[in-house]
Amino acid sequence: MTGHGDLVAELRRSVSGAVIWDRNELAGRDPGFDDRNFGAAALVRPRDAEGVSALVRFCAGKGLSLVAQGGRTGLAGGAATTAGQIICDLGAMNRIEEIDPRARVAIVQAGTTLAALQEAAAVHGLDPGIDLAARGSCTIGGMISTNAGGIMAFRNGTMRHRLLGLEVVLPDGRLLRDLTRVLKTSAGYDLKHLFVGAEGTLGIVTRAAIRLDPIGGSSATAIIGTKDAASALHVVGHFLGRAGTSLRAAEIMWHGFASAVARTLGIDSGELPLDAPCLLVLELAAPTAEEATQALEQGLSALWAEADIIDGAVAMSLEQARTIWRLREESEVIERLHDHPPSFDVSVPGGAIDAYVTRITEGLKAIDADYSPYVFGHLADGNLHISINTDNPPRERYRAIEDVLYAGLQEIGGSFSAEHGVGLDKRDAYERHADPVKQQLSRAIKALLDPSDMLNPGKIVGPGPETR
Amino acid sequence: MTGHGDLVAELRRSVSGAVIWDRNELAGRDPGFDDRNFGAAALVRPRDAEGVSALVRFCAGKGLSLVAQGGRTGLAGGAATTAGQIICDLGAMNRIEEIDPRARVAIVQAGTTLAALQEAAAVHGLDPGIDLAARGSCTIGGMISTNAGGIMAFRNGTMRHRLLGLEVVLPDGRLLRDLTRVLKTSAGYDLKHLFVGAEGTLGIVTRAAIRLDPIGGSSATAIIGTKDAASALHVVGHFLGRAGTSLRAAEIMWHGFASAVARTLGIDSGELPLDAPCLLVLELAAPTAEEATQALEQGLSALWAEADIIDGAVAMSLEQARTIWRLREESEVIERLHDHPPSFDVSVPGGAIDAYVTRITEGLKAIDADYSPYVFGHLADGNLHISINTDNPPRERYRAIEDVLYAGLQEIGGSFSAEHGVGLDKRDAYERHADPVKQQLSRAIKALLDPSDMLNPGKIVGPGPETR
Repeated sequence: MTGHGDLVAELRRSVSGAVIWDRNELAGRDPGFDDRNFGAAALVRPRDAEGVSALVRFCAGKGLSLVAQGGRTGLAGGAATTAGQIICDLGAMNRIEEIDPRARVAIVQAGTTLAALQEAAAVHGLDPGIDLAARGSCTIGGMISTNAGGIMAFRNGTMRHRLLGLEVVLPDGRLLRDLTRVLKTSAGYDLKHLFVGAEGTLGIVTRAAIRLDPIGGSSATAIIGTKDAASALHVVGHFLGRAGTSLRAAEIMWHGFASAVARTLGIDSGELPLDAPCLLVLELAAPTAEEATQALEQGLSALWAEADIIDGAVAMSLEQARTIWRLREESEVIERLHDHPPSFDVSVPGGAIDAYVTRITEGLKAIDADYSPYVFGHLADGNLHISINTDNPPRERYRAIEDVLYAGLQEIGGSFSAEHGVGLDKRDAYERHADPVKQQLSRAIKALLDPSDMLNPGKIVGPGPETR
Repeated sequence: MTGHGDLVAELRRSVSGAVIWDRNELAGRDPGFDDRNFGAAALVRPRDAEGVSALVRFCAGKGLSLVAQGGRTGLAGGAATTAGQIICDLGAMNRIEEIDPRARVAIVQAGTTLAALQEAAAVHGLDPGIDLAARGSCTIGGMISTNAGGIMAFRNGTMRHRLLGLEVVLPDGRLLRDLTRVLKTSAGYDLKHLFVGAEGTLGIVTRAAIRLDPIGGSSATAIIGTKDAASALHVVGHFLGRAGTSLRAAEIMWHGFASAVARTLGIDSGELPLDAPCLLVLELAAPTAEEATQALEQGLSALWAEADIIDGAVAMSLEQARTIWRLREESEVIERLHDHPPSFDVSVPGGAIDAYVTRITEGLKAIDADYSPYVFGHLADGNLHISINTDNPPRERYRAIEDVLYAGLQEIGGSFSAEHGVGLDKRDAYERHADPVKQQLSRAIKALLDPSDMLNPGKIVGPGPETR
């Protein structure tokens, strides 16, 4: 085995132009959303795809594991590293190489942040059509590798649907270059989709072509109190089908979540209708903000009785709209109410949401009478985020909680991981709840592409036959 | 080798409840869009996924090749069969099992036609968000297997983007069941995408969950004459970004195509602005048809000078709108002007379209001074359909034409097959123009899933190591 100093020196020789931090330098740095991210022997920051390829070949030759990292905002341990591993940090590859306004496409390096792409596209009146709270740090490569979703996915699709072309370094160091800039391509197996959501276990994304949409109109925001998700979905269905306007967000918060966030942020029920069992936040776009406001007001008063609306308000100032969005977006205050509370990210088909929330609330109480879930999420695509009001429980207890949350989800067509991926933290859930044929085929594909289990080993499909 | 009568009898015993036609019965039937479809030894029409699995196992045991067929409307020879092969016809599996209006999802069997799904969804004010001229015959399974595109793909994505869940029979007869009904799922490798556009070479699609969108508003139609595609794209860009309305179609026809179709259908330039170099057909939706008409008129007059519009008319009656759409949709009249004219289906990024059309027009003239292309397509996603004004040429000549059409396409981010697939007819193009690493990896994946090359052999990736 190579000594530590030797390793860094060899890395320096093998990956020309790369910035390298050894484990001492890593120890003093911010590991991002996950304390486990910086457990590696070294971090290497290549300056281009050839550098990534050189690093992959180096690690293959030495029998070292390599873990790709982007913005380190992942929530499932997909970028966690251990002592013998090397990090491939894409942070230096953050160039927006081109915005083509006529083809409505951006060519970006994998380390580009979402916010940087949003800003560069906005100059041309365009937008990547995907948005999430970590926009300032999360990178396009990371978003591809986890198939990120966010607030606008119900309308524009997830990251997979925004992706036109991809460049990936394979585990043998070769570059797969499929930088198509067009939406329609049926030119053989569309292999780029293998790497979407693969969390760096099949290849390392180095460059992408991302679809852009024109930004049009101005929007208004409303907050609506309803008795349940079905009632909120009725409202959403109306605005989704309403011609002349365009729904940009439909977020839901259950009472337990909203009241805890409101209390922490110092928002009171004089400002917002916080007493309803469910709160729905809508953002609606129209040619002008006045028309958007009017459409929200008219639509809500027409729906009031038939949708069983309890309470509701259209924001009359930017300040009011901001307060509504703070309530929804500052969800991390929930995470701070407890020490590493168990947190989940599931997809539930629209019609099944109320029954699901009732079932898990009861199931959690059966484990511990004090347990209750904080629930919020993206109503129009059924993506719910759920935290439990307890400190990080022991393993057996955590499993019991998982079983309550995931039981029956597959059967109703939902998903135990909506937009955060599997990483390490949902490995157990994957083995217990993913289709067995899918698991077998996934392992076979991992073994085909990465026979020595070099790239991000242990994540998603688990350790390979020869654990490193 | 089993005799022919024995084979049919054995098939009958092995696939219970299936309808079976032997080669004599096939000879008297309509093979659909491709004369080569019914070359097989027998056609088997299983009644469910278990029947498909039984058929797959039977063929595996006998060393027979199996070719899946849906509506037989494919345009690349993907469903062509030869004497020793068996057809798996999905026609009896045409049940719409469920429309869930709250989750906005349809669960359909693979043999369901697009038109049947459109009608069933419309009852709930919903639509599958994808449309193409073969809607009455093409099936959901076939559309998944070719990643169909069509008129609305620029806004709603291709079939891949409409797909939420999939059930597939694998080459070993196992069922991969991933019938997710939600948009967001990052629960491991999303293997359903491997089968999208794989043309039945990796598995046979038996069931799918398809995303539905609310239908809102009424639309108006306009036809606009411009000097080139850039000018037409300028118009499209305006309406794409116009809040309060929604662009539903942006189709382009070059003069040679439009005048030939108009002549054949008996439409004259008194009715439509047929003299311009390019004709753009727009369909715009708004809350009412009057508002849509008004928005088209206002938009076009505002754009007239800056977009270099030559001529244009907004349809003032349903009759006029129908005439405009006949001009665009009755493109098969072009195919009948010649005997099997060479036909192509490429994607070209927006900004590169005019240069591409100029280049191929010149390149074709260099092969034969009489050659000229009929060009039309889906402008907003850059998908051009191209036929050459000549009878089916000899192989070497065909290759020269292909080289003109495909040269440099990959480099500018286009695709030599946009929505028709590779099948048999684009095998040559695939080998010469697809990325070599992609080809190698695709072959490896085919060998992993279908090691004996049983499913649709010879299509896309070509014959396996042991040709059957």
